[in-house]
Amino acid sequence: MSEDWIADRMHKIDASGIRKVFDLAASMENPVNLSIGQPHFPTPEPIQDAMCQAIREGKNAYSQTQGIKPLLERLQQQVDAEFGHADRKVFVSSGTSGALMLVLSTLVNPGDEVICFDPYFVMYRHLTTLAGGKCVMIDTYPDFRINVDRVRAAITDRTKVILCNSPANPTGYVASPEELQALAELAAEKNIALVSDEIYRAFCYDREFVSPATYNPETIVIDGFSKSHSMTGLRLGYVHGPQHVLQQMIKLQQFTFVCAPHPVQWAGLAALDCDVSEHVADYRRKRDLLKGLLEDDYQIEAAGGAFYMFVKAPWGTGTEFVHEAIRNELLIIPGNVFSDQDTHFRLSYAAEDETLHRGAEILQKLARQGGPTA
Amino acid sequence: MSEDWIADRMHKIDASGIRKVFDLAASMENPVNLSIGQPHFPTPEPIQDAMCQAIREGKNAYSQTQGIKPLLERLQQQVDAEFGHADRKVFVSSGTSGALMLVLSTLVNPGDEVICFDPYFVMYRHLTTLAGGKCVMIDTYPDFRINVDRVRAAITDRTKVILCNSPANPTGYVASPEELQALAELAAEKNIALVSDEIYRAFCYDREFVSPATYNPETIVIDGFSKSHSMTGLRLGYVHGPQHVLQQMIKLQQFTFVCAPHPVQWAGLAALDCDVSEHVADYRRKRDLLKGLLEDDYQIEAAGGAFYMFVKAPWGTGTEFVHEAIRNELLIIPGNVFSDQDTHFRLSYAAEDETLHRGAEILQKLARQGGPTA
Repeated sequence: MSEDWIADRMHKIDASGIRKVFDLAASMENPVNLSIGQPHFPTPEPIQDAMCQAIREGKNAYSQTQGIKPLLERLQQQVDAEFGHADRKVFVSSGTSGALMLVLSTLVNPGDEVICFDPYFVMYRHLTTLAGGKCVMIDTYPDFRINVDRVRAAITDRTKVILCNSPANPTGYVASPEELQALAELAAEKNIALVSDEIYRAFCYDREFVSPATYNPETIVIDGFSKSHSMTGLRLGYVHGPQHVLQQMIKLQQFTFVCAPHPVQWAGLAALDCDVSEHVADYRRKRDLLKGLLEDDYQIEAAGGAFYMFVKAPWGTGTEFVHEAIRNELLIIPGNVFSDQDTHFRLSYAAEDETLHRGAEILQKLARQGGPTA
Repeated sequence: MSEDWIADRMHKIDASGIRKVFDLAASMENPVNLSIGQPHFPTPEPIQDAMCQAIREGKNAYSQTQGIKPLLERLQQQVDAEFGHADRKVFVSSGTSGALMLVLSTLVNPGDEVICFDPYFVMYRHLTTLAGGKCVMIDTYPDFRINVDRVRAAITDRTKVILCNSPANPTGYVASPEELQALAELAAEKNIALVSDEIYRAFCYDREFVSPATYNPETIVIDGFSKSHSMTGLRLGYVHGPQHVLQQMIKLQQFTFVCAPHPVQWAGLAALDCDVSEHVADYRRKRDLLKGLLEDDYQIEAAGGAFYMFVKAPWGTGTEFVHEAIRNELLIIPGNVFSDQDTHFRLSYAAEDETLHRGAEILQKLARQGGPTA
């Protein structure tokens, strides 16, 4: 009966990769958890204050679809100051995931192709499937650089979108200005929409953040407050890009997300005045700490941003290695959750130093044991 | 350039009906506003308290995709007590609009048909288009009853979903148990998914609320806190239905909405203990008041629930009549926003009594003038 009702698209979506790890780990009492994809610091107090104040002031009804005016104005000023593009407009979304869903459903026809870089953030694949499109993956192993020649070779008549993400989840790779410029110019040359997921832009440790929109005024940028201000559960993001595309996205938002949670939008306004540089410095320090602890036993590429490392398993497949890690009370994510390959694992250093030390110790032991013990 | 990028589905969606009215009205200084689709009372204080407390306690990170455990448990108890269906499970969504998007994208293949009742809530059409499906409208004029013979006649091999909404937006019609039973049994007989949008269930004035799920255990029910507890901008809803369907919807939620806003879920828990019967009684009184003021000049069908009346224009099309109303400082919505017909207008009595009196006065004048003055 109801089992027959499910639409075909749902059978093409297997969103259970990370879940399988968590299921495996469910029996663990006190795991060393390096699997978490969100900051470990609390939402800054001025943001909490602003949200509670908005609630008390009765800002609990629908806002305008595109967001509250004061937040829109501040974001527009910020975007204008950075890019100075005449046609670049802003709207407020329900998180970056919400914005990604809107942009892909707005641009992708059934059968269209979306170019992504492998390893990739898992949602890209599923949201492309939801829109009826197909991901074309550009292999970036072993160093996760953007090779624009490979992108050029992958472009077909059906290529509709190039989706880039720097700093990247899961690799922590921060693309160079040269790579981003070449990619942005290629997209413009081919009249392909370039979508830039910049949710980790606050977390760049070794070079300054650069947006590909700098080099291509029609780039659609997805950004948000979740990672920079530890607001993942509050669902607040924003988008900037060509006005015409944004109008279509807002139209779609009107009858899906309706609006970003209203009091959270006022919290976002406070977040814009909230300095998070101390937290960024702390994550840079944690990155250095963990890299130092691991580099005798592991070769660590990228890891210049976000709060992830994407590390080659010293033996076995990524999945085999992660199973052994979990048997040793260490929670990490196998690389095949983010990739067509199963050779690596992702770890997050958004954790207490003590957790990083305990995790590194287990990883050292695992590398040195040369294979599974069971 | 970016103008060429828009996917075909977006050209099939014209979500601007209500907007056009608001644009027309933008120049009005102090309109008599009977157009608002949300309660006019503030979010009850215990709900505000619970939300602020959750924020202070740091419940601002991702929750589980399907919702926080205490809220899930309470909702499951409530649903079990009402229906006692072995396979009926619950999850928490980002509002009912979010849930509607999830259910239609989970069930509808491109080319599938979704049966709706005209007049209909605008989103049904757009969300069906988003999933690649096609709405088949069942005419319910003039009394807005569900005629199950018409539904039976409209069923084809491509019918995937029947979408019902009682109490209804925009008509305020509350279906009888007999109608709902016949509809529910027809869906079961034909193995078609019955989706019941019950967001207005708290607002039934002349008969008790009945869910079609009572008569068909595989009914998928969409419900939420927005209207009953004046939480429209907080984006909290829930779904109950057959486990297998819900699992697919949760999978889709995982990479679109991610989770309902986390602190709002705690507010929802408080809302379950919040008695709103005074507000419901107040809206019943307002319904009676407005009906009394209008019934000499207008024939009012339905209006047994929600906080809407869907009234036949006394002259001209719905649009012509609404334009004249707006020229007279009265804000109402033309019926063609919700219908293939343009004969009616929607008014909302979720407003202060003084506004209702002023609105009724204008409506009396308009009916008696027999046509536009301009």
